Amino acid sequence: MSAHPFDAAVALQPQADGTFLGHTSAAYANMVGPFGGVTAAQALNAVLQHSQRLGDPISLTVNFAAALDDGPFIVSVRPARTNRSTQHWVIEMQQNGETVLTGTAFFGLRRETWGADEHTMPDVPAAAEVPRATGPARVEWVKRYEMRFAEGAIPVEWSGTDQGVSRTRLWLRDDPPRLLDFASLTALSDVFFPRVWSRRPLLVPIGTVSMTVYYHADNALLQRTGSGHLLGQTQAQAFRNGYFDQTAQLWNQAGNLLVTTHQVVYYKE
Amino acid sequence: MSAHPFDAAVALQPQADGTFLGHTSAAYANMVGPFGGVTAAQALNAVLQHSQRLGDPISLTVNFAAALDDGPFIVSVRPARTNRSTQHWVIEMQQNGETVLTGTAFFGLRRETWGADEHTMPDVPAAAEVPRATGPARVEWVKRYEMRFAEGAIPVEWSGTDQGVSRTRLWLRDDPPRLLDFASLTALSDVFFPRVWSRRPLLVPIGTVSMTVYYHADNALLQRTGSGHLLGQTQAQAFRNGYFDQTAQLWNQAGNLLVTTHQVVYYKE
Repeated sequence: MSAHPFDAAVALQPQADGTFLGHTSAAYANMVGPFGGVTAAQALNAVLQHSQRLGDPISLTVNFAAALDDGPFIVSVRPARTNRSTQHWVIEMQQNGETVLTGTAFFGLRRETWGADEHTMPDVPAAAEVPRATGPARVEWVKRYEMRFAEGAIPVEWSGTDQGVSRTRLWLRDDPPRLLDFASLTALSDVFFPRVWSRRPLLVPIGTVSMTVYYHADNALLQRTGSGHLLGQTQAQAFRNGYFDQTAQLWNQAGNLLVTTHQVVYYKE
Repeated sequence: MSAHPFDAAVALQPQADGTFLGHTSAAYANMVGPFGGVTAAQALNAVLQHSQRLGDPISLTVNFAAALDDGPFIVSVRPARTNRSTQHWVIEMQQNGETVLTGTAFFGLRRETWGADEHTMPDVPAAAEVPRATGPARVEWVKRYEMRFAEGAIPVEWSGTDQGVSRTRLWLRDDPPRLLDFASLTALSDVFFPRVWSRRPLLVPIGTVSMTVYYHADNALLQRTGSGHLLGQTQAQAFRNGYFDQTAQLWNQAGNLLVTTHQVVYYKE
C-alpha cells in the first residue's frame, strides 16, 4: 500500500538543533505557493511530533506571513509554558531565514465532563445523495478533496452581483479517503473557498492572513469518525476595507461537532 | 480631568531593552488575577506603542498560559515579518521570568473596497429601554462596565438545569464612558460571562485559554462610534470534555459590526 499524499505532505524530519525540516508538496499546490490548510497541518504536526508534547490540540492559530516558495522550510516550536495538564506552544516557520508563518497552539489532557453540541448539524441530504463537484480544478490541491456541495457551490458565473449571503454547506473528505487525525482535520478546516467569491461572485485576489482552529474532537471521536464524510458549513460575518472573516464548523456523519474555525482573509477591490 | 481607570490599567513603560513594563490593575481585578480582557488589551497596546508598528490591528490572538499575579509584568513584542502594507507580530508576556501569555497579532494598512456587514445587528430594544444590571458584583472589574442585558442575563438561580441554549445579548460600554479605541475594544470583546454558566447555570470553575479578535473597525469608525453603547452578542458552539468555545459580535448603535471574536474556555465538571 503506497502512502497517502497527505502523509507525504506533512512529513517532517527532526533536526539536530530541535527544529523540523519539511518540504512543500506539489500534490497540494495552490495558485501561488501551497494550500494553506496543509501549511497549517505541517505547523501543528511539528508540535504533535515534539518529544515534550503533552495531550492533544485544543486550539491552534496560524498567521500566514508570506506565500511559501516551493521547496524546503524549517518549523521551530517551543513549549512556552507547561502546566499540570495543559501546554502552550509558540510556532514559527521559516524559509531562507525569513519568517513565513507565526503561530501558537494550546494542548491539553481532556477529562470527561458534562457536554453538549449547541451548534447542531444543519439538515442537508446525505453525502451519497449530493453529486460530487466535477469540472477542471484550477489548482492542484482541490483534487485531493472530495467535495459535494449541498448549498453555495463555487460560482459558475462571475457576475459580480451581491448575493446578500455567503453561506456554503458541503460534504467533504480526503481523496483518496484517509483515517481522520488532528493534522488532516486542520487541513480540512481550510478547504472552504473564500466567502468574498460567494457573496459577490468576482475572482478578486484573496489570501488568508490568520486562521484559528478549535478542536472539539478527541482521539476517540476521531477514531469513531474514521474516513467518513464530514459536513462543513461556512459563512462570512463582515467584509470591510480589504479584509473579511469567515467562520466554519465541521461535523461527522453522526452529527458530532469536531471543529469550529475562523479566519480573516485579505481581498482586493 | 482625572485619567480613566482603563488608561491607567493599560499604560506601559518602554524599557531600555525594547520590552514594555506594565502592572496589573486593582480596578480590573478578577476572582484570581486580573480580568483577561485588560490583559489582552495590554498585550495589544505593546504593539500599538512600538516604534516599528505599521497600520492598525486586523487580528489578535492571545493565549492565557497562567493566572497573572498582582504586580508588574513584562511584554515583549517582535515584528516577525513586515511586508509592504502588512505586519505580523509575536507577543509574549512574562512575570518573574515565566511566560504568562503568548500571542500573535496581524496589522495592516486598510484600503477602501467594496464591503458589507453580513452578520447584521439583531433587533433588540434601544440601550435606554433596557435596565442596567445591578446587584453586588462578585469581582471588581465588572464595576468598570455598564451592562444592559436584553437577553440571557447572568443567572439568578444556579439550578444546574440544561437551558438548551447559551445566547446573551447586551448593551455595554466602559463606566465611566470613554472614547473607543483598539485597546478598549479588545477588552470589551472579553466582557461576556462564560457560556457554560448560561447554558447550564452552575458556578463551575472556568478560565479562558485562548481568545482571537478580528477588528472590522478602522480608526474612522472608532471615532464615529465615540463613547456610545455597543451591542454585544455571544453564544457557544460546543461543550466537550473540559473545553467549550464561544463566538461573539460587537456592533455600534448605528449597526456597524466592529468586532467578531472567539474564545475557547476551560471548564470543570
